[in-house]
Amino acid sequence: MNRILDSINHPNDLKKLDIERLELLAGEIRSFLIDSVSKTGGHLASNLGVVELTLALHKVFSTPEDKIVWDVGHQTYVHKIVTGRKKEFSTLRQFGGLSGFPKTNESKHDIFNTGHSGTSISAALGMAKARDLQNQKNSVIAVIGDGALTGGMAFEALNDAGRSPNNLMVILNDNEMSITKNVGGLSTYLNRIRTEPVYFKVKEDIDFLLNSIPAIGKSMAKTVHRAKGTIKYMIMPGTLFEELGFTYIGPIDGHDINNLVCVLDRAKKMKGPLLIHIYTTKGKGYHFAEQEPDIFHGISCFDKETGEMTKVKRGLTYSGIFGKCITDIAAKDDRVVAITAAMRQSTGLGGLAKKFPHRVFDVGIAEQHAVTFAAGLAAANLKPVVAVYSSFLQRAYDQLLHDVALQNLHVVFAIDRAGLVGQDGETHQGIYDLSFLTHIPNIVIMCPASYKELEMMLEYAVLHHTGPIALRYPRGQENTNVSVSDEKIVPGKGVILREGNDISVIAVGKMVAIALEAAKKLDAIGIDAEVINARCVKPLDNHLILYSGLKTGKVMTMEDNAIIGGMGSAVQHLFNREGNHNVCIKTKGFPDEFIPHGSVDELFKQYGLDTDSIVRDIVKVVHG
Amino acid sequence: MNRILDSINHPNDLKKLDIERLELLAGEIRSFLIDSVSKTGGHLASNLGVVELTLALHKVFSTPEDKIVWDVGHQTYVHKIVTGRKKEFSTLRQFGGLSGFPKTNESKHDIFNTGHSGTSISAALGMAKARDLQNQKNSVIAVIGDGALTGGMAFEALNDAGRSPNNLMVILNDNEMSITKNVGGLSTYLNRIRTEPVYFKVKEDIDFLLNSIPAIGKSMAKTVHRAKGTIKYMIMPGTLFEELGFTYIGPIDGHDINNLVCVLDRAKKMKGPLLIHIYTTKGKGYHFAEQEPDIFHGISCFDKETGEMTKVKRGLTYSGIFGKCITDIAAKDDRVVAITAAMRQSTGLGGLAKKFPHRVFDVGIAEQHAVTFAAGLAAANLKPVVAVYSSFLQRAYDQLLHDVALQNLHVVFAIDRAGLVGQDGETHQGIYDLSFLTHIPNIVIMCPASYKELEMMLEYAVLHHTGPIALRYPRGQENTNVSVSDEKIVPGKGVILREGNDISVIAVGKMVAIALEAAKKLDAIGIDAEVINARCVKPLDNHLILYSGLKTGKVMTMEDNAIIGGMGSAVQHLFNREGNHNVCIKTKGFPDEFIPHGSVDELFKQYGLDTDSIVRDIVKVVHG
Repeated sequence: MNRILDSINHPNDLKKLDIERLELLAGEIRSFLIDSVSKTGGHLASNLGVVELTLALHKVFSTPEDKIVWDVGHQTYVHKIVTGRKKEFSTLRQFGGLSGFPKTNESKHDIFNTGHSGTSISAALGMAKARDLQNQKNSVIAVIGDGALTGGMAFEALNDAGRSPNNLMVILNDNEMSITKNVGGLSTYLNRIRTEPVYFKVKEDIDFLLNSIPAIGKSMAKTVHRAKGTIKYMIMPGTLFEELGFTYIGPIDGHDINNLVCVLDRAKKMKGPLLIHIYTTKGKGYHFAEQEPDIFHGISCFDKETGEMTKVKRGLTYSGIFGKCITDIAAKDDRVVAITAAMRQSTGLGGLAKKFPHRVFDVGIAEQHAVTFAAGLAAANLKPVVAVYSSFLQRAYDQLLHDVALQNLHVVFAIDRAGLVGQDGETHQGIYDLSFLTHIPNIVIMCPASYKELEMMLEYAVLHHTGPIALRYPRGQENTNVSVSDEKIVPGKGVILREGNDISVIAVGKMVAIALEAAKKLDAIGIDAEVINARCVKPLDNHLILYSGLKTGKVMTMEDNAIIGGMGSAVQHLFNREGNHNVCIKTKGFPDEFIPHGSVDELFKQYGLDTDSIVRDIVKVVHG
Repeated sequence: MNRILDSINHPNDLKKLDIERLELLAGEIRSFLIDSVSKTGGHLASNLGVVELTLALHKVFSTPEDKIVWDVGHQTYVHKIVTGRKKEFSTLRQFGGLSGFPKTNESKHDIFNTGHSGTSISAALGMAKARDLQNQKNSVIAVIGDGALTGGMAFEALNDAGRSPNNLMVILNDNEMSITKNVGGLSTYLNRIRTEPVYFKVKEDIDFLLNSIPAIGKSMAKTVHRAKGTIKYMIMPGTLFEELGFTYIGPIDGHDINNLVCVLDRAKKMKGPLLIHIYTTKGKGYHFAEQEPDIFHGISCFDKETGEMTKVKRGLTYSGIFGKCITDIAAKDDRVVAITAAMRQSTGLGGLAKKFPHRVFDVGIAEQHAVTFAAGLAAANLKPVVAVYSSFLQRAYDQLLHDVALQNLHVVFAIDRAGLVGQDGETHQGIYDLSFLTHIPNIVIMCPASYKELEMMLEYAVLHHTGPIALRYPRGQENTNVSVSDEKIVPGKGVILREGNDISVIAVGKMVAIALEAAKKLDAIGIDAEVINARCVKPLDNHLILYSGLKTGKVMTMEDNAIIGGMGSAVQHLFNREGNHNVCIKTKGFPDEFIPHGSVDELFKQYGLDTDSIVRDIVKVVHG
């Protein structure tokens, strides 16, 4: 084939290439990406958008001495390819294979792990300050999308970096998208810069403005008065960033590799905080991805000729059920509204937004604001439902505790992607929500074990509950091998799904089906397990759990959450508090370590939460 | 006396007053505030700064129909005084008395509880959207300081509100201060507006800028070329907010009640999101507070004639010991740096900042950025220490987990005000840190029981540890009634302070002294308690705790943290995991409810954590 790409095994190999060959290489990398991701699945569109940027960065800068921090990090495929990981690329996002995000333990060219959005400027500013205190000379670059910039912590960092003397380069990769179209004032502003690089603006309400100028401004006011009626002011692009202290450069075509290299070369010599605004097209160079960048944001395997997904498990998912059900509920009660932090489609709120566009609020990648905004809605007599992924809700821990729970406000948290998410790996696993929620006063936490239960719990939570309530459910589909009870939903009430005398298995959510499967297998070998669907982690069904545990003398708790601080802890506490210390309690869940990427099935097996492992453990408990 | 204030029992009473009488009333309220707070202690300076603003707001708007959300809420004293709580004002911040923050359960004029900074715009936007969906007509106003505006969630809310059509008024109370002087690009920007209400700015790097304009901007570029060399642009104040979609009004003298009423009256009729920028003087009208607004930010009782604190417990505090010790350590190791989120003095970092000004970073009220910034510093080979109050660290839960712990970075968290803070009440109690930290992989958590232990632990954490490590210590002073061991600090190692056979008391931090006092009293009545200072909550000293628990058969854990998810949970888990279910474990800590304001001693008694309650409980466990 004689590809240029075949000769690129280290970023230094790029430096020898002239612009023309870099452009050819960009094309080759696009083909490589499309081909490879069509087989593994992954984040395609964003990577196609940064091919030229990544090549230009590695042409101008030298990693790992120069530090590039990639915000979110799902756009580092090109970076991985040119930093020696081309060969392993077919293992992307697979258990034991390459991560879909930067990992310091994978390459010295990855200098900071990312996953959640908006962290890059903070980390890069830390590196810049550390460099200067240690009298080093390297460049530090944060690459951040316009979506991540709507997150508050990115602003906190801009505010800090803007007045810092340290050399720091922030590359704003503006593609007008988070996963879907961006929202908010900043996005409108960036769009204006892109379409009108230099623009004039007329102040209309001059009179009022003048009235507001205080006494100390009198002489200035005169100046303005003289010009009254004709005041226009020209805004250079980037004023907003300049006001924060940055030197703004842009907007720049992010697919023009020649221009990118020139700008970066020059920027490298500039002093202080610098914001380089480039605009790119998400999905660039692959027709299907350009057309539907949201579909190709994170995609499973697809046919590269047709753009059709090949391993499509269409059908229903928990997110879909949530979406359908919340739309039905909203039709019944016009006080119901929903909030998403830039995840309308993926959380299942698309249908509701279509039917009641004014009742779905997309606040941008801004979980903190999302939660306190919901608190405000609830305080004003609406019934807000915050639909959010478990690992992103971590961002709003304080808001949930301080703004919602403390006031006992009726906010419903629809926590999607709870438990393992699989291929996105450790930054995205939703295995801490029970641990960071159970100690918050006033909150009720429920976990549906089936679609039906999600529907029932959602209806209860929205229409009948009055305080903060969280429903946590997993990514993907229900386990249809088992049927679960349709007994009425009551906080603090679990249900016995199978009576037994040898051990009490207290399972929750996704684990209920596994517990039932295990019970069936155990039955075949003479162990008679009682299976309880706890349904509600807070409050627990104390009576039922105590009754069962005292009957069998042995308890196993099962949750797809970290063991520490989860349901198992609450069950231990219950028996202990009631003085029944002689009941043996085994807690199953995730151990005290971060869980890497891989398929959910592989990981469940790896961590002993699949049916066979559970059977083995129960045998040990019962016979041991 | 015939004060106007005496006739003000409801905000409607204000509406009858003309400007002149409102000005007189402002003076009376200042006297009342100074007099009252000199006896109770409280947040004086910020309240003196908003007297005119509060009166103007209640003159123009009608609460509770109109909604005023006070950011942070420590500046609501005047609001409380004019909304019928004048008489109870002497009970301020006392157990069972008025809260120092807005509380919905205290008055219908308090419509949203606040405490942590930056929440008001989010909540207010929620109320504005709810109003419009319900076809109501009230005004919604967020009052936020320039300090709180450096927090990311305020920006998230501005970004969302800026493109929202809903009428919403944000009053930016700009006094250039958080607790101390504000930092960051935004603060510089606001200062420029205040000092040069209309200013001209010359773009210097026009050439470079032109080179960066992309092809699509060519015609614009020509326009600029024609003006080259003489390009100036006039910035109206507030451009930054206008770019986000707000109509900006200001800057306005926040002590000119007449002007304030005019502006608010007019603003009430305006459409869409509005930002009214007022400038005020923190401590206004009280010489001592104007001179030292940081001292009078939150102050204990003082002599109003001299401005001297009367109940001064100068002497050392945990914060002071931390400050002294970190300065000594930093002198030994020049890789040591410290980070604060606008709390340099109160966290004890003043001394270090004086000695090594370039090694202390005040990032503004921006805990999220603070933590990830520290991760960046650690990734670049420095040894960052984040000094932060427990309840504010809640804001950075995700950053701690995702940016620090996941990469196992050596960041030291000096968690001050852990446990009860007392008078600031439920929003500020630091009783959740053990619960939100123990389930995070890789982190080590230590709790000093004395100054000496804090010194030893800090030295270990900074100089000898290599991953994330948190030290949590209480507000105020050590309990000097007891001496605690000076055995070397090793993660996962506790120490036996008193041997005994009847019960094992596993205490941590502040509770160790109480445990020892209790043991002494128990000894007098024939109960022989073993007292263990756990020192390290994660990892626990499994060996020591098991050994002791098995010896005595009874365990009591003591922590000044929520019981759920705290050390007690870990101890229960330990015994359970090791199969020793027959050991009786009693967990002491805070119950599953928010803890109100009051003195720490009163609250400890109320929640059964004082020595006498502990003695009673141990007697029950031992004899029961």
